[in-house]
Amino acid sequence: MAIWDDVIPAEEQAQYEKGGWGGRVGFGERPALLVVDMSNSFVDPRYPYSSPPALAAVPHIKRLLEAARSGNTPIWYTTGARARTDAERGRWKTTGTSSPLMLDPKASEIYSDLKPQEGEVVITKSHPSAFFGTNLVSQLIYWSVDTLIVTGTVTSGCIRATCLDAFNYNYRVIVPQECVCDRGQVSHKVALFEIHMKYGDVIPVEEVLTYLETTGTG
Amino acid sequence: MAIWDDVIPAEEQAQYEKGGWGGRVGFGERPALLVVDMSNSFVDPRYPYSSPPALAAVPHIKRLLEAARSGNTPIWYTTGARARTDAERGRWKTTGTSSPLMLDPKASEIYSDLKPQEGEVVITKSHPSAFFGTNLVSQLIYWSVDTLIVTGTVTSGCIRATCLDAFNYNYRVIVPQECVCDRGQVSHKVALFEIHMKYGDVIPVEEVLTYLETTGTG
Amino acid sequence: MAIWDDVIPAEEQAQYEKGGWGGRVGFGERPALLVVDMSNSFVDPRYPYSSPPALAAVPHIKRLLEAARSGNTPIWYTTGARARTDAERGRWKTTGTSSPLMLDPKASEIYSDLKPQEGEVVITKSHPSAFFGTNLVSQLIYWSVDTLIVTGTVTSGCIRATCLDAFNYNYRVIVPQECVCDRGQVSHKVALFEIHMKYGDVIPVEEVLTYLETTGTG
Amino acid sequence: MAIWDDVIPAEEQAQYEKGGWGGRVGFGERPALLVVDMSNSFVDPRYPYSSPPALAAVPHIKRLLEAARSGNTPIWYTTGARARTDAERGRWKTTGTSSPLMLDPKASEIYSDLKPQEGEVVITKSHPSAFFGTNLVSQLIYWSVDTLIVTGTVTSGCIRATCLDAFNYNYRVIVPQECVCDRGQVSHKVALFEIHMKYGDVIPVEEVLTYLETTGTG
Repeated sequence: MAIWDDVIPAEEQAQYEKGGWGGRVGFGERPALLVVDMSNSFVDPRYPYSSPPALAAVPHIKRLLEAARSGNTPIWYTTGARARTDAERGRWKTTGTSSPLMLDPKASEIYSDLKPQEGEVVITKSHPSAFFGTNLVSQLIYWSVDTLIVTGTVTSGCIRATCLDAFNYNYRVIVPQECVCDRGQVSHKVALFEIHMKYGDVIPVEEVLTYLETTGTG
Repeated sequence: MAIWDDVIPAEEQAQYEKGGWGGRVGFGERPALLVVDMSNSFVDPRYPYSSPPALAAVPHIKRLLEAARSGNTPIWYTTGARARTDAERGRWKTTGTSSPLMLDPKASEIYSDLKPQEGEVVITKSHPSAFFGTNLVSQLIYWSVDTLIVTGTVTSGCIRATCLDAFNYNYRVIVPQECVCDRGQVSHKVALFEIHMKYGDVIPVEEVLTYLETTGTG
Repeated sequence: MAIWDDVIPAEEQAQYEKGGWGGRVGFGERPALLVVDMSNSFVDPRYPYSSPPALAAVPHIKRLLEAARSGNTPIWYTTGARARTDAERGRWKTTGTSSPLMLDPKASEIYSDLKPQEGEVVITKSHPSAFFGTNLVSQLIYWSVDTLIVTGTVTSGCIRATCLDAFNYNYRVIVPQECVCDRGQVSHKVALFEIHMKYGDVIPVEEVLTYLETTGTG
Repeated sequence: MAIWDDVIPAEEQAQYEKGGWGGRVGFGERPALLVVDMSNSFVDPRYPYSSPPALAAVPHIKRLLEAARSGNTPIWYTTGARARTDAERGRWKTTGTSSPLMLDPKASEIYSDLKPQEGEVVITKSHPSAFFGTNLVSQLIYWSVDTLIVTGTVTSGCIRATCLDAFNYNYRVIVPQECVCDRGQVSHKVALFEIHMKYGDVIPVEEVLTYLETTGTG
């Protein structure tokens, strides 16, 4: 039984079958691991964007980081850029960014349990996708990456947007299910369903760990 | 009552309130109208990607087209490009594109009731967003557009991806609720909820008609 | 007589006439001013990337900055990002970046005479164009800019690349001739010739000053 | 002696040495071959954009195509899109596109001696770079390409813009000197000099042939 079966009715799943959706895109030969927005502002319960599932995802992401480091799989992180002007801030429909806690630079630091190591770059981004307004795609091309493992938060926002762009660029998109999280369970499950039907593979973290232990890019 | 209230539980909507999400981005001064993927393959019931809600959206989109034409609001359409090679096809998780009906060029023609007029460009795209791999943003900049009215199909796929990129580019994103459709009602409602919370305004088509009747870009 | 007449032979200029190249793209209604890479590393004679013409351009750019500020024309700067890894560094064919002077953060600070004021954003970039891997285009769209005045260094490198992308996005490209500079005079003149023939208007700074004094975006 | 030595003075070449420019980026393991704008409009002497050097480049490009086909190196072509509206046309400073010859679809067909074969995609583009407004980068990623061999016309325009974007995306850029051409010799030589100093390797076609004969991507 899939995690989304209690939210997506059988007749709607049947519509996807009619179009031949789903299946597996599969692993490639040169993976990279991406940790999206696991900053204090999204993980630490004191911040307005945090939610309980983020803390639960931390140990699973940590295991993937360790496997990636062992196998020389390159690792990138993202975090939100602090906007200096209205034009940098853009048209986000939230007032949360103006809270005093969010104005402290600690808000955008990666949560301590997942601290980046030497050589692991944190990319600052202003919009949901890790690719938009950044040179992430150039960095992936530098290492001839063909498979992007996407982890972090939130599933229906930055994770989904990043998976979509990775799919647009023709990467094999892999989402280890326990390593992504959302403030809402319906949003979380629907995003995973749609990613799995159309853009990439939503699979158990154990399967991704086994893959990383047998494959390296570096 | 919002269309998504029967799908998104109150406690999950409350999480969005905690982050200060929602509100209105509002109309700008120079709109453009975009009709996404209203081709035979998505509208005509004989095709594998069609679904009943697409036909229901047609008359609403038609009213917007007429209002846009009256006020010199520029109009763009999109349709899917036929892939000539595996690399052009990319990593879509569907087998539907190989059905005989889909290989006929008629599949990607705009549905007859919404036929483009002279000077209205149909952009072919290979991926969900109308912006990815196309020069749509250059064309919008040419006319100093600041507001993008997004219509068509499917809400949780190409519509959502297009709204996301329009938001990334800092356009004011407007989705007239009756003018978008999806093969699944849960996917449809969740996409509208998330777009409205974060990226743009999901509002009644009547409100957009009134706006177009009083504003022109050309 | 144009600045490039002693470098581009008459018969090669005639080839451009045969293709109907040249003319004027003209000013629009909403300008922005961009100052590219006028950091210590390119302006201060002690740095490996500096060249005498950079210092000569400073007072001309300063006059444009003052006119822009008076008229509420928005202003952006760029500077080079310091690469933390090989993938961030990319495939630049230079060894100059590894000199001790270049590793000091002062290298990428904007030259003191052109210091940005409150509300004027410095965008860090990794590649020649101010648009590549940045969200500059989103910020220009936020203000409905239609005309980009490009100044800074070097003419044949980052200036040209930025003009090209601004042209790709359908902005009106304006290059005030005294406000751009290069390490080589041949490269400088040929770049100006080709920009003026194909992508934008290379004109005297006085003409741009007059325009800015009568037009504002903010 | 380099082809640009009679155009770029020794003291300007010395400025590049001071910055540590030049050297070789080298070949990678998975090449692709790109043929830019070798359409009738740029090759056939009857068209306004043609110039004699284009015809001279044809046999050299043909040899590369044959070597690429033998070794399963993927091949892409580009040609200019015919603009249907002012916004599609953009801000090109040329009147040449409105000549009757240019309005005939034959203008944008690839020159017969270089005719694409089954499986070789012709990408239509609206701006100089083969990457801008197209999904070329997605197609290169699909095949894990790391080295882009750029041929065609014109050196100082679409070739240079394409090399620049390929460099931006961190591809190894290779320009076989005999396979690119320009309407002007000064523009041609200066573009080759600058590409070779900064973005890629400008080398004899023989060296590229040897490489293609020993390396395959497919």
